[in-house]
Amino acid sequence: MNTDFVEMNVLFDFYGSLLTGKQMDIFKMYYMDDYSLGEISQELNISRQGVYDSLKRAESVLRFYEEKLGLVKKYNIESERINKIKFIIDKAKNDISDEKALKVLDDIQKELEGIEL
Amino acid sequence: MNTDFVEMNVLFDFYGSLLTGKQMDIFKMYYMDDYSLGEISQELNISRQGVYDSLKRAESVLRFYEEKLGLVKKYNIESERINKIKFIIDKAKNDISDEKALKVLDDIQKELEGIEL
Repeated sequence: MNTDFVEMNVLFDFYGSLLTGKQMDIFKMYYMDDYSLGEISQELNISRQGVYDSLKRAESVLRFYEEKLGLVKKYNIESERINKIKFIIDKAKNDISDEKALKVLDDIQKELEGIEL
Repeated sequence: MNTDFVEMNVLFDFYGSLLTGKQMDIFKMYYMDDYSLGEISQELNISRQGVYDSLKRAESVLRFYEEKLGLVKKYNIESERINKIKFIIDKAKNDISDEKALKVLDDIQKELEGIEL
């Protein structure tokens, strides 16, 4: 299918809920469970062409929403920022001995761990 | 129309790009520029009923996507976390005198300012 599996899995994480039930099933079998088109066709009792069309449709739906909402792009930018802060804190913990400051850095670190972009 | 203007403006911020051009125009006139249905009808030369239907459709599109993707809900949770970190830092800056630590807190603060959820 010449489509990037990693890209598709990431797009699915963000927009999978916008696929129809059938698209979702086929998408998961193909991109997550490594079924071939023929195996999905047999399993779901749909023509191979039908499976292919559903997959292509699902891919274009996911790409459409990324184009409109750009959540993956935004996620990559913001998670880089968060990681930079985590890096600053890790580094600081080696350089700083002030007890109060270390406690504050711990608190910040804990809050950062909770952020789900 | 009995619809919450604040809610609608927030939903539009997240999902407005998914409306059609016509829905977007009408939505903005009504929810941002404070036009009445009658005024929009005159301005765009569409029946009042047509304006109403477009608005209702736009509202339900925005609500549909929030139900599926929950970006507003997620935004509220994560921005609360970010604000908590900002609060921890502000408080710490008053309690801490260690120069190195204060510099680190500044750096973290700057990175946090750049985060757009």
